[in-house]
Amino acid sequence: MSTVWSSRYGLCAQRSKGSTIRELLKLIQRPEVISFAGGLPAPDVFPVKRFEEACNSVLEQHGAQALQYSATEGYEPLREMIARNIARYGILAGPENVLITSGSQQALDLIGKLLINSGDRVLVEAPTYLGALQAFGVYGAEFISVPVDDDGIRTDQLESALRQKPKFMYILPNFQNPAGVTLSEARRHQLIFLADRYGIPLVEDDPYGQLRYEGDHLTPLVVLDHENLRDTAFTLGNVIYLSTFSKTLAPGIRLAWIVAPIEVIGKLVLLKQAADLHTATFNQMVAYEVAKDGFLDQHVKLIRQVYRERRDVMLNALADFFPNEVTWTHPQGGLFLWITLPEGTDCRALFRTALAEDVAFVPGDSFYADNTSEGCRHMRLNFSYSEPEQIREGIRRLSLAVKMHVRSAHASTSVAGTKQ
Amino acid sequence: MSTVWSSRYGLCAQRSKGSTIRELLKLIQRPEVISFAGGLPAPDVFPVKRFEEACNSVLEQHGAQALQYSATEGYEPLREMIARNIARYGILAGPENVLITSGSQQALDLIGKLLINSGDRVLVEAPTYLGALQAFGVYGAEFISVPVDDDGIRTDQLESALRQKPKFMYILPNFQNPAGVTLSEARRHQLIFLADRYGIPLVEDDPYGQLRYEGDHLTPLVVLDHENLRDTAFTLGNVIYLSTFSKTLAPGIRLAWIVAPIEVIGKLVLLKQAADLHTATFNQMVAYEVAKDGFLDQHVKLIRQVYRERRDVMLNALADFFPNEVTWTHPQGGLFLWITLPEGTDCRALFRTALAEDVAFVPGDSFYADNTSEGCRHMRLNFSYSEPEQIREGIRRLSLAVKMHVRSAHASTSVAGTKQ
Repeated sequence: MSTVWSSRYGLCAQRSKGSTIRELLKLIQRPEVISFAGGLPAPDVFPVKRFEEACNSVLEQHGAQALQYSATEGYEPLREMIARNIARYGILAGPENVLITSGSQQALDLIGKLLINSGDRVLVEAPTYLGALQAFGVYGAEFISVPVDDDGIRTDQLESALRQKPKFMYILPNFQNPAGVTLSEARRHQLIFLADRYGIPLVEDDPYGQLRYEGDHLTPLVVLDHENLRDTAFTLGNVIYLSTFSKTLAPGIRLAWIVAPIEVIGKLVLLKQAADLHTATFNQMVAYEVAKDGFLDQHVKLIRQVYRERRDVMLNALADFFPNEVTWTHPQGGLFLWITLPEGTDCRALFRTALAEDVAFVPGDSFYADNTSEGCRHMRLNFSYSEPEQIREGIRRLSLAVKMHVRSAHASTSVAGTKQ
Repeated sequence: MSTVWSSRYGLCAQRSKGSTIRELLKLIQRPEVISFAGGLPAPDVFPVKRFEEACNSVLEQHGAQALQYSATEGYEPLREMIARNIARYGILAGPENVLITSGSQQALDLIGKLLINSGDRVLVEAPTYLGALQAFGVYGAEFISVPVDDDGIRTDQLESALRQKPKFMYILPNFQNPAGVTLSEARRHQLIFLADRYGIPLVEDDPYGQLRYEGDHLTPLVVLDHENLRDTAFTLGNVIYLSTFSKTLAPGIRLAWIVAPIEVIGKLVLLKQAADLHTATFNQMVAYEVAKDGFLDQHVKLIRQVYRERRDVMLNALADFFPNEVTWTHPQGGLFLWITLPEGTDCRALFRTALAEDVAFVPGDSFYADNTSEGCRHMRLNFSYSEPEQIREGIRRLSLAVKMHVRSAHASTSVAGTKQ
């Protein structure tokens, strides 16, 4: 049905695209389906009891404040806590550098609003986080894609991309969504060197940084940038840093943050004020109460333990069940691993076969800004949400579907070969 | 300090403007100041205990769901409850017509994103809600202002404005912010008649509709539009309707909703997905738990009683203390009344004098899309936030400042007269 409204949609609305993932997720509500599709944290590790105590404490002690309007910038004690926490990773920001957002998706939306005019280029990884493509796409961004390999974005291919003068780069350095790969220390230095040489700033999105299951923590880009600037007094420079409580506490409270130079925060505050006034006061006060007194650190340790086990179960099941032609990443942290199928595999067809086997994943082509065929030979698998036995059984089911398609991809390749 | 970022700000960022109100509110944090400035609900009527019970119940019974990601559209039982509640006012929408937003400010932002291209005209009341001017302004809206009087927007001046082909009208029919006036029944019919004749749809913003302290409830524009369309099967048509829990439950949980045709909801869902994925699951489930079993209705009765008293105290104090040259609206509901000072009064200068007397308000010029001098002779006073004794004392203090400025306005008028 068309309405008086539909003839009036503006450019942002015309550019908005649905998430394939969200549409797919609707298909797989059947309880018998084992889903590796969503990017969902394990609900069994949500600190429900601690949330309950925090809600009671906030409402009993500060009920009138918690339910009232509050400052756009965010709840001051929470901003201070975040500044203290990130200082451990060398990010020397004050609370005045921190803006609380309604989830990291809002951070991406506000950054799109801040920086992107229609037709502006944004440099992204290929593959990259789908939500960023959606958020920036609404404002008319054109994307320059640079491929990733096991060490993150291919910095050897970066220079030619930077010559196309993107307005900024969007990088997920740790356990990237969807590929699960981590940008190596050497490439971090190269990236910052090139960013500086070409004068292109960057947005560092780090939702998973604390969920490392092996290896050493690597220096955030925002810190390398600072060292590169050689300021004696610390001022944040060419990197806007994003992180969130969605993966360490709970996504259902929608709390994340932007770390940026004060002047950028000031501008983002104006945009956030027009976008939603402020993030829910109650949620900020409760999250502060949940996280304080070292609870967050303790809880992250628990999450690491649970997710490391699930990752290992998935890696072992893949080795046991998947055919030799298929490869996958070995993520050192985060929630995802990334499957590479033989050339010519159609991940959408594979998705339908998998669904018939009661198992789901996200087809890889969702994560590419450009419509290359490259994405079609990939699958993103989430290992955080399902329990270990489900993971093993799900991978077994998925292997059946994969074997069918790998065979048929081979068949069609040789048919194509015959035709030549 | 300028950064690599500031040279890269896009058009949205360049258009974003700070809220004078928010800047002013920072000035008046001193506890001795009686503030009529904010649009804040009375914290003493927040149902804190009920919230505490709701939080416990939600976390104990549905903890894993409440802390997890959820659908962009909103929590289904909450959407159903809202559809049931608005049906009492004749708005025959189903849950599929309801989108939950992170406060009404997000509803305005999403509508701006949905409809406005740079340079598009939006018809607004003069004065109108400042947050709407900010939200639409970011997307490059140009405003056509039509004045309001005691019966709401001057429908006799509407036709010439509609000939300028605005993309839509933005109307606050009940106890308007800032003027406190209500659109009369006759003008509602005229407005819908003209909207239909000129084919201009409208956004009906109704945050205060339930807070009526006298007189009869008037038919919402969305219902008149429906009757006008003479559909037998109900389909929402030319009106998008907005309301919120901010004034009936609490603003600190950031929960509001949009009621629109299904096809418009579908488009708004895509935009909301890119903007913040979804409104906090926990908040939606808690609000449902708070509001259910008739609690919301009972609570609204309490709020009406408290605010009616405060309005009456303010009206009486104005009659007792203010000079004859000053007039004000008599709002039948809502949170605000609107003061008209003699021509030539400078409300910004008056604001500074008032602050020296430890009382605050919002200067009227903040609420006008165009920079006419008309706004300068107005003040918006909030009567919901302060307690009755404070209201009387605050109006007494304010009357001192007003008397100084009314005198000096007279003086400068006569000086100007002498000069001619």
